[in-house]
Amino acid sequence: MQAKVRMGMVGGGKQAWIGNVHRLAAAMDGRIDLVCGALGSTRRKSVASGMHLGLPGERVYGSYREMFKKEGKLGDDARMDFVTIATPNNMHYPISMAALDAGFHVMCEKPMTLTLEEARNLGRKIRRSDRLFCLMYNLLGHPMVKEARDLVARGRLGAVRRVVVEYPQGWLATRLETTGHKQAAWRTDPRRIGPTCTIGDIGCHCHGLAEYITGLRVSEVCADLATFVRGRPVDDDGSVLLRFENGARGVLWVSHIAVGERNGLSIRVYGEKGSIAWSQQDVNRLVVHWINKRSEIRRTGLPGVGRSAARATRSTLEYPEGHLEAFSNVYLEFVDAILKLREGKKVRRENAGYPTATEGTRGMAFLDAVARSAVSQAKWVAVEDESPSEQAAPGVIVKPS
Amino acid sequence: MQAKVRMGMVGGGKQAWIGNVHRLAAAMDGRIDLVCGALGSTRRKSVASGMHLGLPGERVYGSYREMFKKEGKLGDDARMDFVTIATPNNMHYPISMAALDAGFHVMCEKPMTLTLEEARNLGRKIRRSDRLFCLMYNLLGHPMVKEARDLVARGRLGAVRRVVVEYPQGWLATRLETTGHKQAAWRTDPRRIGPTCTIGDIGCHCHGLAEYITGLRVSEVCADLATFVRGRPVDDDGSVLLRFENGARGVLWVSHIAVGERNGLSIRVYGEKGSIAWSQQDVNRLVVHWINKRSEIRRTGLPGVGRSAARATRSTLEYPEGHLEAFSNVYLEFVDAILKLREGKKVRRENAGYPTATEGTRGMAFLDAVARSAVSQAKWVAVEDESPSEQAAPGVIVKPS
Amino acid sequence: MQAKVRMGMVGGGKQAWIGNVHRLAAAMDGRIDLVCGALGSTRRKSVASGMHLGLPGERVYGSYREMFKKEGKLGDDARMDFVTIATPNNMHYPISMAALDAGFHVMCEKPMTLTLEEARNLGRKIRRSDRLFCLMYNLLGHPMVKEARDLVARGRLGAVRRVVVEYPQGWLATRLETTGHKQAAWRTDPRRIGPTCTIGDIGCHCHGLAEYITGLRVSEVCADLATFVRGRPVDDDGSVLLRFENGARGVLWVSHIAVGERNGLSIRVYGEKGSIAWSQQDVNRLVVHWINKRSEIRRTGLPGVGRSAARATRSTLEYPEGHLEAFSNVYLEFVDAILKLREGKKVRRENAGYPTATEGTRGMAFLDAVARSAVSQAKWVAVEDESPSEQAAPGVIVKPS
Amino acid sequence: MQAKVRMGMVGGGKQAWIGNVHRLAAAMDGRIDLVCGALGSTRRKSVASGMHLGLPGERVYGSYREMFKKEGKLGDDARMDFVTIATPNNMHYPISMAALDAGFHVMCEKPMTLTLEEARNLGRKIRRSDRLFCLMYNLLGHPMVKEARDLVARGRLGAVRRVVVEYPQGWLATRLETTGHKQAAWRTDPRRIGPTCTIGDIGCHCHGLAEYITGLRVSEVCADLATFVRGRPVDDDGSVLLRFENGARGVLWVSHIAVGERNGLSIRVYGEKGSIAWSQQDVNRLVVHWINKRSEIRRTGLPGVGRSAARATRSTLEYPEGHLEAFSNVYLEFVDAILKLREGKKVRRENAGYPTATEGTRGMAFLDAVARSAVSQAKWVAVEDESPSEQAAPGVIVKPS
Repeated sequence: MQAKVRMGMVGGGKQAWIGNVHRLAAAMDGRIDLVCGALGSTRRKSVASGMHLGLPGERVYGSYREMFKKEGKLGDDARMDFVTIATPNNMHYPISMAALDAGFHVMCEKPMTLTLEEARNLGRKIRRSDRLFCLMYNLLGHPMVKEARDLVARGRLGAVRRVVVEYPQGWLATRLETTGHKQAAWRTDPRRIGPTCTIGDIGCHCHGLAEYITGLRVSEVCADLATFVRGRPVDDDGSVLLRFENGARGVLWVSHIAVGERNGLSIRVYGEKGSIAWSQQDVNRLVVHWINKRSEIRRTGLPGVGRSAARATRSTLEYPEGHLEAFSNVYLEFVDAILKLREGKKVRRENAGYPTATEGTRGMAFLDAVARSAVSQAKWVAVEDESPSEQAAPGVIVKPS
Repeated sequence: MQAKVRMGMVGGGKQAWIGNVHRLAAAMDGRIDLVCGALGSTRRKSVASGMHLGLPGERVYGSYREMFKKEGKLGDDARMDFVTIATPNNMHYPISMAALDAGFHVMCEKPMTLTLEEARNLGRKIRRSDRLFCLMYNLLGHPMVKEARDLVARGRLGAVRRVVVEYPQGWLATRLETTGHKQAAWRTDPRRIGPTCTIGDIGCHCHGLAEYITGLRVSEVCADLATFVRGRPVDDDGSVLLRFENGARGVLWVSHIAVGERNGLSIRVYGEKGSIAWSQQDVNRLVVHWINKRSEIRRTGLPGVGRSAARATRSTLEYPEGHLEAFSNVYLEFVDAILKLREGKKVRRENAGYPTATEGTRGMAFLDAVARSAVSQAKWVAVEDESPSEQAAPGVIVKPS
Repeated sequence: MQAKVRMGMVGGGKQAWIGNVHRLAAAMDGRIDLVCGALGSTRRKSVASGMHLGLPGERVYGSYREMFKKEGKLGDDARMDFVTIATPNNMHYPISMAALDAGFHVMCEKPMTLTLEEARNLGRKIRRSDRLFCLMYNLLGHPMVKEARDLVARGRLGAVRRVVVEYPQGWLATRLETTGHKQAAWRTDPRRIGPTCTIGDIGCHCHGLAEYITGLRVSEVCADLATFVRGRPVDDDGSVLLRFENGARGVLWVSHIAVGERNGLSIRVYGEKGSIAWSQQDVNRLVVHWINKRSEIRRTGLPGVGRSAARATRSTLEYPEGHLEAFSNVYLEFVDAILKLREGKKVRRENAGYPTATEGTRGMAFLDAVARSAVSQAKWVAVEDESPSEQAAPGVIVKPS
Repeated sequence: MQAKVRMGMVGGGKQAWIGNVHRLAAAMDGRIDLVCGALGSTRRKSVASGMHLGLPGERVYGSYREMFKKEGKLGDDARMDFVTIATPNNMHYPISMAALDAGFHVMCEKPMTLTLEEARNLGRKIRRSDRLFCLMYNLLGHPMVKEARDLVARGRLGAVRRVVVEYPQGWLATRLETTGHKQAAWRTDPRRIGPTCTIGDIGCHCHGLAEYITGLRVSEVCADLATFVRGRPVDDDGSVLLRFENGARGVLWVSHIAVGERNGLSIRVYGEKGSIAWSQQDVNRLVVHWINKRSEIRRTGLPGVGRSAARATRSTLEYPEGHLEAFSNVYLEFVDAILKLREGKKVRRENAGYPTATEGTRGMAFLDAVARSAVSQAKWVAVEDESPSEQAAPGVIVKPS
């Protein structure tokens, strides 16, 4: 019988869109059971959501602290194995810290924390613990994103020269946050979204995707953040010039006020010998151009794609796969690691097949640099180096408890 | 607590792609538990798949007959509520009949049966039973398909005049069935696929989709079926001229030898005042043209779509949804009906929110007409009328047992 | 100095869209001078258009008969070399016959004539004359259409198995012809458009394109023509099943009532080893799929296309070329042949690099078969064989006069 | 009879792609006759090209100076009316100055000059002359670009907030200039291309298009130019952050080393109430999104587009129009103005319906600012203000000579 793991959830109540996405994705392959939750900011809200989801009443908790404490007292074959954190950004840090203290693995929504300082603290704790930490960079779960990464990693595109990555959205083109819209409210509240709204909400996806596909680090940024909606205390539009560690150049731009755009994320990477283009509007297609061959279209589920993409593909014959499958792919890799640990095997804490604290901390260093650049007169601001020695070198192994 | 229903499965073993799709889709919303199965053509195969899926050993059965018998003896709170039939076409009929006899609801893959005669028999049995029958026409679960149907139903396009529907695939362009490829083998075996392979496998999707969106019946057909791969005993390519009951004209074509195509299903419906275009390559987009207004693009999850589409949408903000969500949408409507019955409420057996025996029998009448036309010298062959009185009039109610 | 040829024009007055297209296309490369015209159905109209175009008054004629007579009396270095016929279909035949009698080459709009009988008569006259005849199948001038033909001709796709070609338009979805719309009026007048409107106006393009790309003849048809707009005396929608001489199957459909469509012509050709797709909505792109390689996108002006396409390409670097360039490409080949003749060289009357009476007569045989099929109860109607011996064998040479 | 104007040409010999484009475009509508040329850098080259084009020998000149001198002595009904300058960038200024001195109107390729200083000098000379100057910003001739401008100008999008414009090309991804490739050679020679290659060659198109559509001026830039191909003395890739005079933000990026891109220019403009997207890959389509309505697709030749677009459209029914038509549209407006002057009418020197020295000087000010920013440590560099008083106020009239 296929082993299963047990999941708890903080945040993501019945009205929270992202909470439902996590539950659907986690449930998809039948290897994860949702067993408990602290699903709202009050006990009443948590109970309402818990009932809606059919959770047993005794495992619906009023707070994450209560959940960690009581779950910790349950037997090995009952208590949750990991907690999914689907709260506003400001809670990622304290909940992750508490979960690790209580002995639970963590699946945390992006960005990792509210500040770079917090990310470093959390990273240190993770490295000292025997628990696993997964950052939900769901885009990295798409087969064609993996295919793109493979093409770069295998040198097929040659040295990367230019990157263009963007994430335009238009839903905050008016002051939606004053109309009672919860999603808008927390994202435009500096205490909950962090030093920059556009990067903290969507720009971190762009950064994570660019570093994942290129295998390169963004080393310097030059940022221009703007607020177009009057009275809004956070930025709602941003452009960033990028310089990568190998000299490649790039542009990253994000917007919450780009009327007509919904989830218009796309990335293009140009190398010496070839280039790739991928878009969230057509996730199963990767366009590949070659300097001396005809252009190709690679598609999820078709022959001619690499192993990573094939492994992340559920159906064949090019049936349309979407974002749930991408979330699920991240969950699957994380569950695999948890089960290995359970069986007493060694697992990698870095380069783990799923995004970890390394990627999360890199993202926070990027966010931090952009926020500093936005208020600086200097042209270039360095992204602080989260050196491998600080971060735990690739290959460091978590020993099972 | 949200009520759940229990599902058993016949066919769809671990190597069967469609079986996995059903399990993922059924699991997606956490309202269906897979509790038992007869998952292979032998006990050994069934057990292997059952173990792989983590089913308890005592509920993995060697045959559907054994499953129906033993499950029938379990208590109300344990035995499966419905059976999903994911076998080759020739088994749909006997398993459905047996399931109804044993008191289980049925979720059956398309096409409903192997012959029109069987479909009529099964339809009669369903009408006399208090059990529900759902035909898995998964395409009808896509939000933008529902949106298209709504536009026609509300008269926005005016009277429908022309329909073009196609489903090209290329995977059988060579004689794959002689290489040990199971999917190819049964689809090219006349005993298992039925009188026509292209219509029985993919043409029935086209017909179901066209009748669903237009709300019209295909009344006459003129078909040309062909076999291009030498030695293949079934057709692998087909074209059909369509006449609809209201005088609208259409073309339906399908192919298994259309090199380069995977799941290239698309439909276009032209009315007096507007037209729609939808494609399985971009399931979340519906293009709408108007005779005297500018063209529109409607998208899943965006404002400006109707209630049916919105109800079938899981995420907002235009996140990419795919075919799993479409399957799930069909399951959800079916589960709703099962639960209503369980609560002693009345439910409709027809016009049920999910495809029923009516749609299934219509599909078999179409398949039957195409098969007759293909060997006829007459230009037009009538699709036999599955009259409402025969089929159970809309509005007929299943009384709970 | 680059030699030029002189062009006269019948029809195509200042309000006629197609007349202007011909003039722009003929003028594009600076090798054709428009020197005279009989541009309207009355002398008054002709003079008005002639003045508008800046033609010298003495070379604006009241009728094509007058034009042929008076131009024939001018010197070798003054009189027109060829006449472009841009009139309603019913005038193609008498004007072509008269032009040949008067010693002028002919550039004739499609379709060649009103009836198959006329086409055969005209074909015979052409074969006995020393003048050249070009049929304006403008679509054959697109570089990517030539590329598609090359791929088939060189056997890259293997034997052709299936063809799908369509030309939906929507501009006649209402009874526009009763509103004073000239274009609509003649196209819906059986005496001017011929036995079928949809085939005579747009279906002939589909047929010509399909035979050009595949190099195959349509041998049998099964047609369903319909009239949706009440009171219209001609068909405004049509579907045709096709059988090709090699056993390939196809579908051709055309419509004037497909709301929202403008010039939606597209063709797909599936062979044993590969397939191509081309559309008038994106004329510079040819999608090529292979049975065992990744898909390609070929584009006008890019490396990697064959000689025919490259020869028909004016710009490099993928600048957008359109339908004027396609018309011009047909003119260029025709002018080349005229100039060769002028220089005393031999030229081919068939397989001439531009569409000739052979293609024109094939088109009329197709139209004739569709019209007969539309009123027949028999399923299949043979397209009459315009045998090479009747048609002038390929390689027959026009000897200069 | 429709009046014509006579054109001379400097540069654009038979091997120069852009020369041919100009000739085709100028010839398209039959209102411009090419009468003379100095078509190469030597007399021999000029004569070879002149013969190829069929120009009379006595009007093929060895240099532009000779041409201006000799043409100036011809009679009013013979000598050229205007000269088209299709040379490398460094010759735009001296030839334009000489042409104005000699009394000829000027059609000049972009960019206007090599330096901002030259542009200002040339602008002053134009304002003091009675001759007209047209800058060939061909992109501004596309109907859907005009439609976009109209939407902004009429306030339909609300205040512009964000602009994204890009022009990736890949043809210089290797050191093509050392292989004898003439186009590559002059574009990578700082003396001929000017202070920046990417902006001087393609970035000026982006800037001109952005200011044309938005009606706004770029006021500040922050640029990052790079050279990826070793040994190349000019930049081959560039990113620029933009700030517009009204506070709108933008990104402009261009590249010559973006493998796989050909003419990938595209622009997106987001306003408070709507947004537009246009691309050179599909010039006849304008996507328009609205904050509270469904998205639209506007197309060249379809109903529902504004007057400017309709006026720039040659065909109806959505036949594909391309870049030649766009060039022709610029020529047509310019010819109209020349003819008005000839008839003694007043014409505007600014806001002229075609791009003038105002747009040209703005482009050079932008180029100048980018070049300064690229080597500056300061974050923002102001684009120098070419004030209307300096530039000739809108409404200033050229009086006929």
